[in-house]
Amino acid sequence: MKLNDRGLLVVISGPSGVGKGTVRKALFSMPKNNLVYSVSMTTRTKRPGEVDGKDYYFVTKEEFIARKKAGKFLETAEFVGNLYGTPLDKVNEQLDLGNEVVLEIEVDGAQQVKKKVPDCVMIFIVPPGKQALYDRLKRRGTESEEVIAERIAKANREFKLAHRYDYIVVNDDVANAADRIMAIIRAEHAKTDRSIHKYMELIEEN
Amino acid sequence: MKLNDRGLLVVISGPSGVGKGTVRKALFSMPKNNLVYSVSMTTRTKRPGEVDGKDYYFVTKEEFIARKKAGKFLETAEFVGNLYGTPLDKVNEQLDLGNEVVLEIEVDGAQQVKKKVPDCVMIFIVPPGKQALYDRLKRRGTESEEVIAERIAKANREFKLAHRYDYIVVNDDVANAADRIMAIIRAEHAKTDRSIHKYMELIEEN
Repeated sequence: MKLNDRGLLVVISGPSGVGKGTVRKALFSMPKNNLVYSVSMTTRTKRPGEVDGKDYYFVTKEEFIARKKAGKFLETAEFVGNLYGTPLDKVNEQLDLGNEVVLEIEVDGAQQVKKKVPDCVMIFIVPPGKQALYDRLKRRGTESEEVIAERIAKANREFKLAHRYDYIVVNDDVANAADRIMAIIRAEHAKTDRSIHKYMELIEEN
Repeated sequence: MKLNDRGLLVVISGPSGVGKGTVRKALFSMPKNNLVYSVSMTTRTKRPGEVDGKDYYFVTKEEFIARKKAGKFLETAEFVGNLYGTPLDKVNEQLDLGNEVVLEIEVDGAQQVKKKVPDCVMIFIVPPGKQALYDRLKRRGTESEEVIAERIAKANREFKLAHRYDYIVVNDDVANAADRIMAIIRAEHAKTDRSIHKYMELIEEN
């Protein structure tokens, strides 16, 4: 029996190149989960094959800005001239249904979410060592030395943000990291702050 | 990779009759655990077959009282004229070895432990409803109506202490309750407060 029926807003973040996406994928492939993605809203043009409401919610720049002004986003970001955001109402719908909404986002977005939803679960994914992450960033592609140096500098700044998170999970082994995140989700549901309300009702009733 | 090498002090408590002992046994039978019991110290007479240092540490009343005055117990209790206590040094030895020390104790003792070791993990085991616990207390044995009424009154007082704990775990199914406690232990190790020190070292080193 679960004493907290509402889903959790789980924020997965970490330094660039740590493998957040891989961990998130491993997490979603775990048995008996009730995890859901949050579909982002964007102003960028729909690509062939993309479905509105599934890949993204596609909106005009004007609509996006109006929504942002109205406080309808959990977090927003700009990337090569296009705006991206996590719609608050869609996230709340899922949480009310009892689903855990997982956001895999950059550290800036994570801080925005924490401000809007203080009881979200903030998880910082870290590499087993700095060198492991540097190697990953170098291996990633065909980028110039300059681009790689920039990424390493960014990662070095992001490494120091761990204290802003509730949990630190090492991505030394993807399955292990995903498993630990599942344990965090289970534990968070049992936290007194989240479960005492229903417990008190239970004790009053019968 | 675990970012917290020290074991956790896990306090399992709850209203009388909720089945703390059964949950604790299920917990210890789980695979790949590094849980250890804490052996209590007592002034009661050693019974045939009992081993000093295994079942209990047997000491005289004078020694017990001297140790208590010196602050050498995590918690103490009196039961039918005998004194019982959890020796702090033995607990710390196990925590330093990286073992999780599990204390299954009454609510009064749990509060004493919380005061001495603020970073212990406080878990409150609750029944799926009050009636379920009343039935258990009645089924327990051949006690008089009076004794049963007293126990129910005690449980009713204890029900209300949930807010003093970090987690509330329902004992509707023993395996499920044990499983949730294991998740709590894993999650607690990943908590930023417990893991940031080693993480910062890791990031400095390589």
